[in-house]
Amino acid sequence: MVDPQDLVVASSRRQKHVDDVLDRFFSLAKNRAAAIGPRYVTLWQTLERNTSGGKRFRPGMVMGAYESLGGTDSEAAAHIGAAFELLHTALIVHDDVIDRDFIRRGGVNVSGVYRDFAQTAGIPVPAAEHRGLSVAVIAGDLALSNAFRMIDKAGVGDEMRRRLHDIFDEALFASAAGELFDVDFSQLKSMPTVDEVVDMERLKTAVYSFESPCEAGAVLAGASDEAVRALASFGRNIGIAYQIVDDVLGVFGDEAATGKTTIGDLREGKRTVLIAYASGCPEWLEISQWLGLPDLTREQAGVVRRSLEACGARQYAEDLAREFADRAIEELASDALPDATRDEFQPVIDAVLRRVR
Amino acid sequence: MVDPQDLVVASSRRQKHVDDVLDRFFSLAKNRAAAIGPRYVTLWQTLERNTSGGKRFRPGMVMGAYESLGGTDSEAAAHIGAAFELLHTALIVHDDVIDRDFIRRGGVNVSGVYRDFAQTAGIPVPAAEHRGLSVAVIAGDLALSNAFRMIDKAGVGDEMRRRLHDIFDEALFASAAGELFDVDFSQLKSMPTVDEVVDMERLKTAVYSFESPCEAGAVLAGASDEAVRALASFGRNIGIAYQIVDDVLGVFGDEAATGKTTIGDLREGKRTVLIAYASGCPEWLEISQWLGLPDLTREQAGVVRRSLEACGARQYAEDLAREFADRAIEELASDALPDATRDEFQPVIDAVLRRVR
Repeated sequence: MVDPQDLVVASSRRQKHVDDVLDRFFSLAKNRAAAIGPRYVTLWQTLERNTSGGKRFRPGMVMGAYESLGGTDSEAAAHIGAAFELLHTALIVHDDVIDRDFIRRGGVNVSGVYRDFAQTAGIPVPAAEHRGLSVAVIAGDLALSNAFRMIDKAGVGDEMRRRLHDIFDEALFASAAGELFDVDFSQLKSMPTVDEVVDMERLKTAVYSFESPCEAGAVLAGASDEAVRALASFGRNIGIAYQIVDDVLGVFGDEAATGKTTIGDLREGKRTVLIAYASGCPEWLEISQWLGLPDLTREQAGVVRRSLEACGARQYAEDLAREFADRAIEELASDALPDATRDEFQPVIDAVLRRVR
Repeated sequence: MVDPQDLVVASSRRQKHVDDVLDRFFSLAKNRAAAIGPRYVTLWQTLERNTSGGKRFRPGMVMGAYESLGGTDSEAAAHIGAAFELLHTALIVHDDVIDRDFIRRGGVNVSGVYRDFAQTAGIPVPAAEHRGLSVAVIAGDLALSNAFRMIDKAGVGDEMRRRLHDIFDEALFASAAGELFDVDFSQLKSMPTVDEVVDMERLKTAVYSFESPCEAGAVLAGASDEAVRALASFGRNIGIAYQIVDDVLGVFGDEAATGKTTIGDLREGKRTVLIAYASGCPEWLEISQWLGLPDLTREQAGVVRRSLEACGARQYAEDLAREFADRAIEELASDALPDATRDEFQPVIDAVLRRVR
């Protein structure tokens, strides 16, 4: 699950506001946990550490939509932003369980912390790993349920709360479907089509990271139905563009600039837009023999890269990303949206397009 | 995680009402899922099957508390009951991930269904099992978030909704702590004390299965604070008694009557009240050498049983269960509660005590 760390939309003022909301939430939770026992406090501390350190991308989208559409109750917007941040934590903690990852953003995640505790206590690796994953299942449940509850704390009226819960519910409904399809892609043998990959990326990440935060911010601001629709559609399209660019950078990126390996996706045999496209080309015979080898060398990766370029997969993916970005630009130009909203989100478009060659 | 299948408190009328609420919920969800794809519908169908078939124990507790305290909006009570049922589904689906169980109540659970799909598709066992567990993580998330949302659908006022959400939140907060402690007990080497085991059983199961449903039903009925407190405390104590009896039956039960193996807990080396007590006795040297052997024979299990009796562990656990049941009886006798509530819950006490020798 991708974290758009390089898309800065949350100003430091907004970041601080969301951080304050989350700080209060975790302080309260840790106090409650202390009444149960110190080990429960440790779990909450670990969950808190896994929620901090991000750029608050999703809250930034919520608050950008809200404020640019004239909203002035920044406390309410910060709560809705914090709800999306907790949803994000829940989803990545459980995504890491599914991918058996113990590391995120260069540090140990919840699973990693508890695996290490267990190893220190003398438990052998497979059991220690299982303990880490078990605790991460629990931690993700706590983040998820509290994400929903955070909306209750925004101090909005009954009807508004219901609408926001519906949007939030839709976000989780979509990402669960996307995660399901992603699990299918990674574990079943048949190759998905490009459309299926794009659909999975939309469901798994674009909805809850881009579309729903935009929609929630606009609804909270009391924007017209047409403005809400346009901004949500903007979010969906720029979110898909972002994910496709991410597929490209996962193979062709500049490791120094992105901080991401360009060999991981190939070693994993990840079903990306690049790979789904390439599977229909004559070069596929060459590509497929290297794909998914856990010990793929840099030289072999270079061969795969050249074949992906030769068959036009890279060009195809970059064009497709631009196509979705263009749709996002069109939506943002809607008469229903004020210039303030365009000014707010133009940098997001710029950042996505800057990442394409 | 124990399911009090043998405690019938939901009359067929109440069961049917809760079933209707859940049927409508799942129909709607499956319709929404159909717009995303047939594989997502299958996931919802699997989740629905994992939610049906139970005796609706927790909804029965909610509705029993509510109606006996004079509540007449049975539609609202059925929704709160359904919320607890979905919470239960979420917790057992994720508990089965943690325990790597693929079977529940004699049929395959969510993990089992998806493991079998994967095996049929030619995926080898370890990867197929991981696929099953991965999908179960997703399914549990859907059940959990929709449990919280079910309360929104009860049609109660804003203040009542908030109080019910707080009770529900407390239930999840407790069971997450209980699950964490249970994971610790099963994977760490040190032996918990009897108090620690009782505390774990209270947190993991008694709160969300007994205490919180009683409390929610009483609050929804508009009962006095004293009545709410008494009934919640009744639930907590009878719930703990139930769990302790369950520990005893897990080793000394009549397999024909309970339908449960009496060798599983011993083979697993499960930390129960019996075992925590026995660990302080001279017989422990004998017991500990057999405990946790995956291939423990019936004869060896017989030796362990005799040692548990000889050291007084069985008697101790049965006395402790009776002690908690007595506290429950005392709470139920509270002046704040009407006779109708006593009549409603006396059968629960009787059923728990009937299970003790």
